Amino acid sequence: ADVKKIAVIAGDGIGPEVVGEALKVLKKTEELFGYQFETEHGLFGGIAIDEKGTPLPQETLDICKNADAVLLGAVGGPKWDNNPKELRPETGLLGIRKALGLFSNIRPANVFDCLKEASTLKPEVLEGTDLIVVRELTGGIYFGEKFRREGANGEEAVDTCVYNVVEVERIARQGFEIARTRRKKLASVDKANVLETSRLWREVVNRIAVEYPDVELEHVLVDNCAMQLLRRPASFDVIVTENMFGDIISDEAAMLTGSIGMLSSASLGEGSFGLYEPVHGSAPDIAGQGISNPIATILSVALMFRLTFGYAEAAQCIEDAVKSVLDAGHRTGDIAVDKSKAIGTTAMGDLIVAAM
Amino acid sequence: ADVKKIAVIAGDGIGPEVVGEALKVLKKTEELFGYQFETEHGLFGGIAIDEKGTPLPQETLDICKNADAVLLGAVGGPKWDNNPKELRPETGLLGIRKALGLFSNIRPANVFDCLKEASTLKPEVLEGTDLIVVRELTGGIYFGEKFRREGANGEEAVDTCVYNVVEVERIARQGFEIARTRRKKLASVDKANVLETSRLWREVVNRIAVEYPDVELEHVLVDNCAMQLLRRPASFDVIVTENMFGDIISDEAAMLTGSIGMLSSASLGEGSFGLYEPVHGSAPDIAGQGISNPIATILSVALMFRLTFGYAEAAQCIEDAVKSVLDAGHRTGDIAVDKSKAIGTTAMGDLIVAAM
Ligand SMILES: CC(C)[C@H](C(=O)O)[C@@H](O)C(=O)O
Ligand SMILES: CC(C)[C@H](C(=O)O)[C@@H](O)C(=O)O
Repeated sequence: ADVKKIAVIAGDGIGPEVVGEALKVLKKTEELFGYQFETEHGLFGGIAIDEKGTPLPQETLDICKNADAVLLGAVGGPKWDNNPKELRPETGLLGIRKALGLFSNIRPANVFDCLKEASTLKPEVLEGTDLIVVRELTGGIYFGEKFRREGANGEEAVDTCVYNVVEVERIARQGFEIARTRRKKLASVDKANVLETSRLWREVVNRIAVEYPDVELEHVLVDNCAMQLLRRPASFDVIVTENMFGDIISDEAAMLTGSIGMLSSASLGEGSFGLYEPVHGSAPDIAGQGISNPIATILSVALMFRLTFGYAEAAQCIEDAVKSVLDAGHRTGDIAVDKSKAIGTTAMGDLIVAAM
Repeated sequence: ADVKKIAVIAGDGIGPEVVGEALKVLKKTEELFGYQFETEHGLFGGIAIDEKGTPLPQETLDICKNADAVLLGAVGGPKWDNNPKELRPETGLLGIRKALGLFSNIRPANVFDCLKEASTLKPEVLEGTDLIVVRELTGGIYFGEKFRREGANGEEAVDTCVYNVVEVERIARQGFEIARTRRKKLASVDKANVLETSRLWREVVNRIAVEYPDVELEHVLVDNCAMQLLRRPASFDVIVTENMFGDIISDEAAMLTGSIGMLSSASLGEGSFGLYEPVHGSAPDIAGQGISNPIATILSVALMFRLTFGYAEAAQCIEDAVKSVLDAGHRTGDIAVDKSKAIGTTAMGDLIVAAM
């Protein structure tokens, strides 16, 4: 049989709770669709710092490399915030992206009907918002040389932002390909009026655009994009951008939907391998109380099914189950209007499994 | 008599129209308060490219250096968008900032009562929003070394982001000083979990904070800031950040107020010298039609009075006049609900002068 290997990295904070519910959903798809999954768990982030002295142990990396896909909960927390760089959870996150070659981060930002009111934007502005940010994830200022030196004005710090043609080509293609499956509009976000890397970015995107005459391309400066997302969010389809701008723009886009507790993401490399995780963080303030919302992680499984395994039917089954549970009025605390009626993490997971 | 010299740079697009109205206001303050202003006009931006072959002619720079303050309209337009770098209006903008040592960009983002409805945010979220972004303007990735080179994967582009201790100190102080005159809250925005320049930034801000025990400091990661601006805009008082993040965050903040046509800005150096300009751009699509909104430029004069000349009373007079004209229901097209009742640029300017 075709056994799929999934590396499971629960991580910190609410990570283990939400991943636990996602695993129930995974199991249910085995029963319903006859799939076979083999899961292997790895330590990562703060817990790995505590237990192994490094945020990304080699063993965990090996488990990931040996798997077909990775399911990640969340990492980080105040406990490790003041650690030196090598002992910080984020360093593990950057390390795993680079080590697994995950150059493309896919961040859908769409509005859940039942959560329209949760957005701080007016409903009529939000109406129809359904966009995907495709963020370059292994280049740019995140991974360029960084150092301190003595200058004429005392100590100075340096970060280097580098992009080469190949890096831009592959992420641009990713953007065009995804746009092609949707409303066929691609916004490429850069700061070409100031940055040399952005000018290269724009040249390459324009060159690749020739291969996608069916996709309408617009170039948007990053400052303008931050504004237009607020003014006309529904007009965006796919946004492709470099690492640092993508970090900011994807979070702005996620927040404006009001659905941040529900959004999943994929980080992809060459081929079908991918790492899947909820957009929300480790929420240390509510960890261990059994009240976190597992939906984003459950939807990350659906995304894994679609993008890595090609299990479209099962993905749809999960997404429909989530929708039906929400339509029936069930809410975890983060998305409940009446907090007194909120249900817990496992109750939400069980309801979704039952609805599948 | 104490004659103040003002360099006037009308620039491109609607620049000349809106500056024209601001000059009427300036003149009126001479009559009302007995001030004396000497204005000298300079070419800058696209028009300077057309007439002098460079976006920032030496003559214009000399006029600015010889003045106590600069009033700028707006620069840029599609005509020059595909020019080589040296012949682009933005290059002039970056050049003038550097040449005049304008390291601090002050961008108030507040809500005009009469424009609450113009925001895409829900009124109850926006309620009480009144923040200032203090953006570092002459350092960071904007001014670091930029180049192309051949790499293993074909051509690559490089931008360098550099900050030294002195640059961070002076902008941090600026942030704390402004916070001290307001609600005494400073949010320092960086990406200290990834960037070396941000780690230096945070160290220096923490060190300077000791001098301002009365100001409450929080560090906010830039991605989180992009989200929190949407979620709790009213909770911010002063935001201080580096050049690139400030470009994005200040535009997001401006847009969420719904008042973008009304916002002014100041770019300051050492001492009292400053360059004042509306936040909105050159709006080439409506240039020359006499329908642009001069209020942001008029309010830039008020800001100049406050920050450079210490003419607080006259500044208040201008601000009150603007408010009374708006309260009386007068609107230019950009801010009119009923577009058919909109008035033109000069009519708006005249009404404000009359109300002073
Ligand atoms: C934790 C941090 C390093 C990371 C990033 O900036 O990429 C996070 O913000 C994200 O977007 O996944
Ligand atoms: C035109 C551009 C170079 C400029 C900048 O990025 O600083 C503009 O966006 C601004 O904010 O004044």
